[in-house]
Amino acid sequence: MMRFDDNELTCNDFLGGRVRLLQPASGYRAGVDPVLLAASVPAKAGQSVLELGCGAGVAILCLSARVPGLQMVGIELQPAYAELARRNSEINGCDLDVIEADLNALPDDLRQRRFDHVMANPPYYRSGAHSPASDAGRSIALGENTPLIDWITVAAKRLAPRGFLHMIQKADRLPDMLTACEGKLGSIEVLPLSARVGREAELVILSARKGGRAAFRLHAPLILHAGERHEKDGESYTEAVSAVLRHAAPLPRNLCHRQ
Amino acid sequence: MMRFDDNELTCNDFLGGRVRLLQPASGYRAGVDPVLLAASVPAKAGQSVLELGCGAGVAILCLSARVPGLQMVGIELQPAYAELARRNSEINGCDLDVIEADLNALPDDLRQRRFDHVMANPPYYRSGAHSPASDAGRSIALGENTPLIDWITVAAKRLAPRGFLHMIQKADRLPDMLTACEGKLGSIEVLPLSARVGREAELVILSARKGGRAAFRLHAPLILHAGERHEKDGESYTEAVSAVLRHAAPLPRNLCHRQ
Repeated sequence: MMRFDDNELTCNDFLGGRVRLLQPASGYRAGVDPVLLAASVPAKAGQSVLELGCGAGVAILCLSARVPGLQMVGIELQPAYAELARRNSEINGCDLDVIEADLNALPDDLRQRRFDHVMANPPYYRSGAHSPASDAGRSIALGENTPLIDWITVAAKRLAPRGFLHMIQKADRLPDMLTACEGKLGSIEVLPLSARVGREAELVILSARKGGRAAFRLHAPLILHAGERHEKDGESYTEAVSAVLRHAAPLPRNLCHRQ
Repeated sequence: MMRFDDNELTCNDFLGGRVRLLQPASGYRAGVDPVLLAASVPAKAGQSVLELGCGAGVAILCLSARVPGLQMVGIELQPAYAELARRNSEINGCDLDVIEADLNALPDDLRQRRFDHVMANPPYYRSGAHSPASDAGRSIALGENTPLIDWITVAAKRLAPRGFLHMIQKADRLPDMLTACEGKLGSIEVLPLSARVGREAELVILSARKGGRAAFRLHAPLILHAGERHEKDGESYTEAVSAVLRHAAPLPRNLCHRQ
């Protein structure tokens, strides 16, 4: 599929309406993960940012809303999502350069460039570990046709010296991510994301630095939902997460996770 | 040094007086770490447990106080600490078999044995990363003459099929520990230990299973001290930690860390 029809799309608000994004109604739809990833990137105006597998552009366009003046490039394998990312960039008055390419076969001009930050929200499931998705686009977005290690290898190559990788991923892939960083990226920091206080981490945001030599750090978890368990009466985001999702706040690393 | 003189030793209570241990007054002295390690081992009566680098025997004798009927072996490189572990075993009416040996040169009869659990609290500092200790025994106990990967390799070899490794270590060594487990141990679970709520992890307890194939799990941190910061008026252990240290409670994995 090269392009979504308009009647296949919905338009959704992110960051309290600061960002409006078209998404396929039935394909891969962004949750809070890319928004939290964007909030974890300490980019500054004038810096360059590359997103690997940008999809409809949710993460990098959310970053752009918080940090103006970035030079932004997004790589997306699927033509229909790349097209959507371009439309979303325009809708939000951004200047995102979307390149349709396989991570493992980037065009030559991109392979000449180095970025201050590389961000990625790679697919969450190991191939074979889930039942086949009925939607082909969603399947590619979820199915990990590109191994996780390739995402980190490509990111490391595209980073400028002292540049940072920022990646959100299921917590159970942390050992694979750390192994993939070996010899390529250092100064690794991990922020666990837990649904509720006292629960094990479901996701992690890993940051790593090209040429970094600082000791590994495991931060206190960011707790997503207040309360001990799910209550029926609507959303229950913790204050820190709500500040990110509704008010475009950055994500502090040393969060006090009590709510 | 082959033996501590009695006037070089102090006798200290652990687990609310359930365990009494001789320790060198000026050498390596146990903190809460080996006690927490012991509390994390889900051993059952009749099972076999090996401690690598048992020192004066704090960890394995604390485990013994909580779980009677274990077959226990401790390996210790330094003769004076091995002797102390034997005395401590006797003082506490335990049956710990202490073997004086280098991890990388275990005696033949031990190399014929397999254990249900292997536990270890390896030295915390990379050699070269700290100023030389004035005390030679303390230096060996802290200096990591044996690389961390060797501890995990030896543990994996001594484990029975489906047996568990339990290791406490500085959090910044987590990537090294995970790498060392690759291809040897699976079903890895990590319990971060943080001094206070919202702080990054200082230590981790890693458990891993021989032949295990379950997904990696990152648990909610165990918080050691109540309150946001250090107060002068004495101890401030959280309820869960106090239950371990004072009442020999086991360490639940799914701790709710709010206090």
